[in-house]
Parts: sequence; structure tokens; C-alpha cells
Amino acid sequence: MSAYRSLEWREGVIRLLDQRRLPRETKYLDYTDYREVATAIREMVIRGAPAIGAAAAYGLALAAAHSAATDVKLLRAELAQAADVLRAARPTAVNLFWAIDRVMTRVADPDLKTAGDIRAATLAEADAIAEEDVWVNKQIGLNALPLVPSPATIIHHCNTGGLATVDYGTALGIIRTAHEHGKRVNVLVDETRPRLQGARLTAWELQQLGIPHKVIVDSASGHFMRTQGVDLCVVGCDRVAANGDTANKIGTYNLALAAHAHGVPFYVAAPTSTIDLSIPNGDAIPIEERTPREVDHVGRERITPKGVNVANPAFDVTPAKYITAIITEYGVAYPPYEKSLAEIMEKAKAHRAAHKVTT
Amino acid sequence: MSAYRSLEWREGVIRLLDQRRLPRETKYLDYTDYREVATAIREMVIRGAPAIGAAAAYGLALAAAHSAATDVKLLRAELAQAADVLRAARPTAVNLFWAIDRVMTRVADPDLKTAGDIRAATLAEADAIAEEDVWVNKQIGLNALPLVPSPATIIHHCNTGGLATVDYGTALGIIRTAHEHGKRVNVLVDETRPRLQGARLTAWELQQLGIPHKVIVDSASGHFMRTQGVDLCVVGCDRVAANGDTANKIGTYNLALAAHAHGVPFYVAAPTSTIDLSIPNGDAIPIEERTPREVDHVGRERITPKGVNVANPAFDVTPAKYITAIITEYGVAYPPYEKSLAEIMEKAKAHRAAHKVTT
Repeated sequence: MSAYRSLEWREGVIRLLDQRRLPRETKYLDYTDYREVATAIREMVIRGAPAIGAAAAYGLALAAAHSAATDVKLLRAELAQAADVLRAARPTAVNLFWAIDRVMTRVADPDLKTAGDIRAATLAEADAIAEEDVWVNKQIGLNALPLVPSPATIIHHCNTGGLATVDYGTALGIIRTAHEHGKRVNVLVDETRPRLQGARLTAWELQQLGIPHKVIVDSASGHFMRTQGVDLCVVGCDRVAANGDTANKIGTYNLALAAHAHGVPFYVAAPTSTIDLSIPNGDAIPIEERTPREVDHVGRERITPKGVNVANPAFDVTPAKYITAIITEYGVAYPPYEKSLAEIMEKAKAHRAAHKVTT
Repeated sequence: MSAYRSLEWREGVIRLLDQRRLPRETKYLDYTDYREVATAIREMVIRGAPAIGAAAAYGLALAAAHSAATDVKLLRAELAQAADVLRAARPTAVNLFWAIDRVMTRVADPDLKTAGDIRAATLAEADAIAEEDVWVNKQIGLNALPLVPSPATIIHHCNTGGLATVDYGTALGIIRTAHEHGKRVNVLVDETRPRLQGARLTAWELQQLGIPHKVIVDSASGHFMRTQGVDLCVVGCDRVAANGDTANKIGTYNLALAAHAHGVPFYVAAPTSTIDLSIPNGDAIPIEERTPREVDHVGRERITPKGVNVANPAFDVTPAKYITAIITEYGVAYPPYEKSLAEIMEKAKAHRAAHKVTT
């Protein structure tokens, strides 16, 4: 477990580590209103697909805990409303919808006869999502282990560590597992403009984990591949389509193109909760456009002249043909992804059934 | 002419627009000591390959003007020392060396019989370099005109405008010429981390020129090519090798790789002063590594945790195979560049001989 937690449930309160202030300040914020949790997700107090999924699940637990409803029908209606508010927080990462749907499926269980039953079930499901997330991340790290040579120079984009998840991390979890298994890893950390999740958060996590790393500007990845040699790239994802097209933080696609040109393996770490077989390809993934202020300011510093237009897509889509493999908690998917991802989702379903996981 | 000048000679004083303060503040700095000019080049008060060439030439004029030497031998020795100091300012852009060599060739002319002759010749050569630069840029713009469709969405990296030259600009000069000829150009401005020459300087110039533009993060170029369509990319250069390999601001290579993947033409604007036939390919171009502070701070804002390592190569090399054409003042060079660049350099030599240009 890490010394920090992106989120924690504390008897009717959600405590979030305010990631906007990192690395300058380690400040936790407490939430008792699910609407404020939705705002916190939108404003990126908490970010990272798995983390916002868990935060939304606990948001529903918060709505249930603080509701005055004694009638099951009324409580279910209130939770449906809370689900709508939380769903609207961000559009691209599918985990938000996946986690909300999972809790709401549990809430709909006709065996829940009282408001108390529903409250308990809502919290139990949120807890299950959070606990499973840590297991999922560790499995992804183990499944990727044979793919990481030693020594290995690895380029990593955005932040995918403990901060982006409930704990441990997805792509950063792969790096962490390799390091914990004695492999000599050296990370080139894409700073990840505009919000600098690499420079601010990934560097902070790697520093605490004692993993060697250097921060680089995002546009330098090709230069390092050409001049120094890079062994692999690992990134997380916000949504993977049925054909393997992957939405992730803006800049992922440029990194994948550089990797492709140099024959550097490009791996996506994807919990199965991020795989969306309902959409055929990446063109169907909505790409969030965020405020110009993320680009034209860095902290208090304005960097453009006043009045200059900015375009700020928060994500891009990397076509499946540039992805060497997609690493899930149930195994490594290789092309053709239509087949391999479908098989992995079947395996996930069977595993959940065998372990009596609710969804 | 632009409303601003990157550099001006004013009777024994070099006046530089302090580009570190733009766009926040338009402040000019006056220099009377060539050593301070070398420092200004190193600290990027003035930057851009053609501009630092002209600044170094005027630096020699400054050394000549302020020397107490009355003996021609002594003055020549002082200028040789000044040339060494100025040459050491930055390693990658060849214009610095080209301009210094050009002035020193003139200084060596045995027809210069007095210290006064040498002083006058030094300044005359610096003036010639500055005047020719504006002509060169306008020719590059005209030579590129047939390559720019209308309407055209153009991605531009770093700053290559009036600020990066004596006036008008190289790659930005191409955009400017197209705009002045009534073509409907729309510029996606790479912000150009780490020093943000795109966000700070190119956006400022485009705003003043009334050319439509949007600032984007560097890593978003592939996303815009994939989703919106981009008609061409134009960049400047710091040194072009005999085979066409081109050193330019870090990030140029990643942009070229994205352009290549999408079949988007990738053009390099190159004054012949930037072409270095003495080196066979890009591997021979020294790449400047600059201070970590450019990456781990933006203005006063620290963006990484303290103690984090940073790699900060200021330039990268784009292999010739990713360059559609190299546009010079003497014509457009296409692959194979060994042949086309050699021909253009012959043309330049013949033109200079016909016009009695000194070198």
C-alpha cells in the first residue's frame, strides 16, 4: 500500500487527496454531498479512470447514507438522480459509467427490502469496486512482467499510479511490479501537458517508490527513441473499444506514432472495467474538450498573449494498429483485438461468476 | 516591416527586444559589450537561428567599435577573440558560426589598411547580413507559395517569425506570405515546450498580423491530423546536413512522424545560411542540453517535485526521409537532398558572385 490514498471512505464522508495541489501540498478534502463529489471529479481533484470510477461509486454511497428516505422506492429514485449527476461529470472514461451501473444494478436487486438494506448494499458495492481495483492493478503488473526486459528504459505518459487508481496503479503498476521483482527500470516521464500529470504526479510517485526516472517534455519522446534507445512505452487508458482503439490522455497517440516508427513496443494497461465492447471503434468515443485556461495558464502564470484562441482536447484515440498489446487483469490481449478482447471479457465474466462477484 | 524588431544597431549600441519577457512585456535592452551579447544569446534574450547569426555579426561590430586598438593586427586579434566568445554562446544553430565566419573573412581582407577600415567593414558586413536576411525570408515565402492550398490548416512549431529573424520570418514567413496573397490560412500553433516559443511568441506575432490561429499542446498534433485534417506542417531549422537531416527545436521530429503517418506534407524553411554541407548527416549535429529549470519551472511556478531529474535536449534531428521539401531563398529542394541541396548551394554561390556579395 502507498503512503497516500487517492480516496477513502470514512463513515459517511469521502476523503479525497486534492491532486490539483500536488506536488506542492498534500491536502485532503472531505465530502458529504454527492453533488460536490461530481464537481470534484469534473475539476480533477481526483482523476484517472479507475479512481473516478471508485469515487463515483462512493458518491452513490454518500447519497444513500445522507438521504432521509425511509421508503425503498424513494431512496432508489434519489439514487437514480445522484447517478445522473455523477455520470455527467466527465464523458470519456468509461469507468465512471461502469462503476455507477454496477452500483445501480446492485441497488435494483429485489432482495433489498428496506432503505437500510439499500444503504448497506450501496456501500458494500463501492467497497468491492475499490478492493477489486487494487487486485486488478497488481494482476496487470504481474501479467506484464514477462514483457519488461532488464534493464529497461520505459516511456510513460500521464499518471497511472496509485493516484489514478484506488491504489498501486495500472501502467505505473507495471513499472512498479517490474521494479519490485528486481528489474532495472529507468522511466522517461512525459510531463503531460496541459495539466502536467507526469511532471507533478508521476514524478512524485516514482520519487517515493525510489524508481529511477527523468522528466521530459512530451515532444521529446521520438528524440530519445532515436538517440538513446527506448525498450517500451506503457500508458493507461480511459476507454478501449471492441477493436482495440484506445482513448487516453492527449499525447498518447503521438507517443504511439513515435514508438511505431522506432519499433518500440507500445503497451496499454487496461482493467477490464475500461474495455467497452458496446462500441465498435474509437470514433464512437466522446472526447472531452476542457477549458482553455489549462493551456494558456500554468498555475498563476499566463503563457499566451491575452485574447489568443486555444484548442484543448483532453484525450486522443490511438488506433489499435499502433498498440502492441493490451494488458488486463485476466491476461494479455494481442491483435486481432476483436477476438482477444472478447475472450478476455468472457474470462472476466466466468471469473466473476465463480467468485460470486455481483456483476 | 513589423512593428517590433528583434535587433537593431544604433550607433555603437545593439538594441535587443527581450524575448524572455514576451508577451507580458515589450522591453528593449541595450548592449555595448560583445561579451554581454554572447550572454544574451546564451540566455535567449534573442533566439532563432537567423536572429542569433545577425546578433553575433553585430556583436563583432560592437567589439570593433569599442576597441581602443589603432593597430590593424591588434584589432584583428581582438576580433578573433570576440569571435571565439560569440561562437561559444550556443552549439546547434549553424547561423551563429556562418555569420561570424562571414564577418571574419571580411575582416581578413588585406585591402583593409587601417583600424578605421576594419571597423567600417565589420559593421558593413553585419548590416549586409541583416538586410539580406529580410530578403531571404521574403523569397522563402514566395518560393513556398505554390505549396500552400487555400484554405489551409497549418501546424507550426516553435517561433520562426520576425522575432526569430531580423524581420519577416522563415516558416512563419511562408504563412505570412500566403496570408498576404489572400490565401485562407488557419494556424495550429504548437505551444513548444519547454520555453513556449509558440504560445508566447508565435501567437503574439500571429495576433498582430491578424492571421487566424489556435494554440495547442505539442502532443496534440496527431489528434488534429486524425480528426480534423491538416494540410501541411511548416517549421524552421537550426542546421540542415548535406543529406537533408534537419536539426530544429525539440518536438520537430515528433511532429514530422505524425505528419508522415497521416500523409501530411512536412516542409522545412531553410535560409541557405542554415545549410551545412560540411556535415554528411544529422548525427554530426551537436544537440544542446539546456538547464533543467526550463522544464521543471514555468515562470515562477515549479511544476515537478523538488529533486526530480530532468532531461532537456533543446533540439532534435528529423531524418531527411520525413521531410517533403526544404524551402530556401534560391528554390525548393526535394529528395534526394544530397543532390538538390548541393545544386541550391551552387546557385547561391553564383548569385552572390553576380551581385558581388562578399562571401
